[in-house]
Amino acid sequence: MNVSEAILRELVDMGVDACFGNPGTSEMHLVASFDRVGGIKPILCLFEGVCTGAADGYARMAGKPAATLLHLAPGMGNGFANLHNAKRAHSRMINLVGDHATFHRKYDAPLQSDIHAVSKPVSDWIGDPVSGADAIHKVRQAFDIAMRPNGGLSTLIVPADIAWSDMGAVPARAAPTTAPKAPVDAALVRAAAAALTSGEPAILLIGGHGGLERPMRLAAAIAQKTGARLFTDTFMSRLARGRGRTKPERVPYLGEMAVPMLSGFRQCVAIGTKAPVGFFGYPNKPSTFLSPECKVHMPWSAGNDLSDVLEALAAEVGAAPAPVITDGPAPSLPGAGKISIETFANATAALLPEGAVVSDEANSSGLWAYLAFQNAAPHDWLSLTGGAIGQGIPVAVGAAVACPGRPVINLQADGSAMYTIQGLWTAARENLHVITVLLNNKSYFVLNMELDRVGATAQSERSRSLLSLEKPVMDFTAMARSMGVKAVRAEDNETYVKALQAALAEPGPHLIEVMLA
Amino acid sequence: MNVSEAILRELVDMGVDACFGNPGTSEMHLVASFDRVGGIKPILCLFEGVCTGAADGYARMAGKPAATLLHLAPGMGNGFANLHNAKRAHSRMINLVGDHATFHRKYDAPLQSDIHAVSKPVSDWIGDPVSGADAIHKVRQAFDIAMRPNGGLSTLIVPADIAWSDMGAVPARAAPTTAPKAPVDAALVRAAAAALTSGEPAILLIGGHGGLERPMRLAAAIAQKTGARLFTDTFMSRLARGRGRTKPERVPYLGEMAVPMLSGFRQCVAIGTKAPVGFFGYPNKPSTFLSPECKVHMPWSAGNDLSDVLEALAAEVGAAPAPVITDGPAPSLPGAGKISIETFANATAALLPEGAVVSDEANSSGLWAYLAFQNAAPHDWLSLTGGAIGQGIPVAVGAAVACPGRPVINLQADGSAMYTIQGLWTAARENLHVITVLLNNKSYFVLNMELDRVGATAQSERSRSLLSLEKPVMDFTAMARSMGVKAVRAEDNETYVKALQAALAEPGPHLIEVMLA
Repeated sequence: MNVSEAILRELVDMGVDACFGNPGTSEMHLVASFDRVGGIKPILCLFEGVCTGAADGYARMAGKPAATLLHLAPGMGNGFANLHNAKRAHSRMINLVGDHATFHRKYDAPLQSDIHAVSKPVSDWIGDPVSGADAIHKVRQAFDIAMRPNGGLSTLIVPADIAWSDMGAVPARAAPTTAPKAPVDAALVRAAAAALTSGEPAILLIGGHGGLERPMRLAAAIAQKTGARLFTDTFMSRLARGRGRTKPERVPYLGEMAVPMLSGFRQCVAIGTKAPVGFFGYPNKPSTFLSPECKVHMPWSAGNDLSDVLEALAAEVGAAPAPVITDGPAPSLPGAGKISIETFANATAALLPEGAVVSDEANSSGLWAYLAFQNAAPHDWLSLTGGAIGQGIPVAVGAAVACPGRPVINLQADGSAMYTIQGLWTAARENLHVITVLLNNKSYFVLNMELDRVGATAQSERSRSLLSLEKPVMDFTAMARSMGVKAVRAEDNETYVKALQAALAEPGPHLIEVMLA
Repeated sequence: MNVSEAILRELVDMGVDACFGNPGTSEMHLVASFDRVGGIKPILCLFEGVCTGAADGYARMAGKPAATLLHLAPGMGNGFANLHNAKRAHSRMINLVGDHATFHRKYDAPLQSDIHAVSKPVSDWIGDPVSGADAIHKVRQAFDIAMRPNGGLSTLIVPADIAWSDMGAVPARAAPTTAPKAPVDAALVRAAAAALTSGEPAILLIGGHGGLERPMRLAAAIAQKTGARLFTDTFMSRLARGRGRTKPERVPYLGEMAVPMLSGFRQCVAIGTKAPVGFFGYPNKPSTFLSPECKVHMPWSAGNDLSDVLEALAAEVGAAPAPVITDGPAPSLPGAGKISIETFANATAALLPEGAVVSDEANSSGLWAYLAFQNAAPHDWLSLTGGAIGQGIPVAVGAAVACPGRPVINLQADGSAMYTIQGLWTAARENLHVITVLLNNKSYFVLNMELDRVGATAQSERSRSLLSLEKPVMDFTAMARSMGVKAVRAEDNETYVKALQAALAEPGPHLIEVMLA
């Protein structure tokens, strides 16, 4: 058995069952090892940003890491943006980055570069093994890091000569592979409880891994008991939503809305996150959203399981075991007429099947969708966490791999789609039930708004050309079909509803191109 | 005038006339400044890897830098792979990377990351200005670095608040903007001349910027005078080729071919490069290609103009002012029949118009093309320099922007095309005369070969799935059309010849999909 095979066996032993790969020469022994190791499925992506985004989507839904298989520093570079998003999602991931044979590194061959430097900003841990036994130790460490209570991104460099060398005896496991949880800090929890029950206007803000059903129910119970307003971060890695689920508010993206909304609070308890800040800094606008008089409490650390923290806080304030959840009216299908960002949102929410997963990169076209889905059937909502566009399609692919049997709806803006459009091919190859709703407004619409927000104007054709996706308008229907994905175009509500019903009824990948005026 | 506008004006003053951009909120003031600054054309690319690859192609043909406009660390990450290739091509480039307002950095907003870390492996210089005046000093430094004799990649971080601040007085220019050339080292040149005239079997190896017409003619003259064999590196950033041009051999990609070919040499003079090494390390194969007894001489430094070095060497050996160049028979059109990598190569070479630019990312499908083009009409040949696939389409876009009036033929492998396929849209928007010959063999063909070379085998469907592009086969004809590029499919020689003739006759973007068995 060579080291490649031993690495894959170790991953399988720890429960890693998917590997999103885009390998090259230095990874060929790892590729070949899939011949001999069952239990881990290799999934080809045509670009590394699809690999890393898919592994992120997988981790959000599976709660455990997938592996990626990348080719030296340039492969890591291609995967960087979606690793950035995964890091902001507190996801779990093990990147296997093939490298030159150690004896070949000194020759500065064409693909030689600094894997450590490009990996550092998007890795919680980097391993660079010096032997086969060390590689096995390090793959276990990589898993431990990924399984920390609030996630971890591990990057394991695998030099080709270590990969092809004979394993010898696999070293014995020294410690449990799952990192222990840290105990909840009772003093911090008491202080948070005191803040929430102080009588001052209070906000309970949830982020990170706190969006799953159980922690959200605890949070809602605490809010109901204490009178605090319950919010989540603007962009949650995963949020359990829909009928019968907690209905937190979310911190608005726009500071112009967030600051007045949050100005009255004097106590903020943030769990899994920190005090909310603006996505960007703007001239003459504050970078932070809370009032300067608001006291911020963070009764958690990265070592805590957030449910433990919320449970302790619920006990401290004497919250009821289950919150009261009041659903609004179920969304209803729109009437006949031209499709808009509002009618697409309502129609999708109305047709959403229970257990669906939503990968949201609708950006400005999703303005109505977040609200409309609040009373849809129970589902999981996955947001763009790090602001690096090009996440929606890959995350949908990964979520579908993690959740066979659950349809994945990807609400996808046009400009963002073009960063990782190759992900459609993987959805086709793996026959994933991913329905991409491609919202074609022929522009980077949000940037036209941001131009104004930063106090700039672009009058000329030259400046505006950088924000427009016209000339030529892309035909996403044809593009999807070219990669093996069934696709239709919808310009009116009836066509859209029919297309979505058909796509939901037929497992496998679909794309519906919604033409917005 | 704000600092954004001053930066653009400074670039224009130095002769930078193109900016390949994919901006976001933090770059909006730079975007708006194109309103007020003429002489620099903003060109939208839908993915940052297209920006950096296009700027590379532009620089190879224009001999001066283009600017890129990227969005924080994730934008730099997306541009990383083609920056890696550009670095290996010794290209000239100025990356403008927008960043958060300096006052906003401390809040760890979602897009915050380490721009320095991700930029370092692919930058010769990084500037992070602290004021408007400093930004102007640094944009000049960035240009100086890019204009060094053997190229340079500059990365200028532009915080949003510096970009939108008032410029005040533009600081006076302190020094000339072009870095001075270093004098040729006469002693090294004499030693190299002695090596070439020693009577021992000698090789003259040219790399870097040595592929232009003038240095190649000098190199050929030296080789003819001394009896040295003239080679170039395997992958040249730009090589003047075709009828009437020097016909160097090239170091084979495969060590299995290179080692026996080079084993007899005892003297090697390398100019613009170093002793040749394998692209990868392999089990039980040497990493270096020359015989251990071969002495290597490098009579040049990064500060030298390689033409100066070659001129001095030519004078030292007493080479004739012009080499004798013997053309082989002109390539001829293939007869009727199914198209193959051989007939596509001959047909393209036969039809190639004088002055064409070839962007070569044909990989394994280009096996015949390099030889076939040797006696085609005079043209420039741009290779994939750093091994990070996804270069061909962007480099073609940039070359076409640099050389209006010269058709650009992109010989493009299918697997590699999918890394930066978005570049086709920019070719359409800018109406560039880029003809993409898409070689569809439905696999990462080269990896099947590399699998064998590293001593691995992949027998199972699972392993092989990582190397195959079947299931589903991509339809590049439809994909190109979906982005506004005229496209046809060719399965036989006649269809291909007709399609290429039509594409050459009609300026604007075209794609011809060649279906290989």
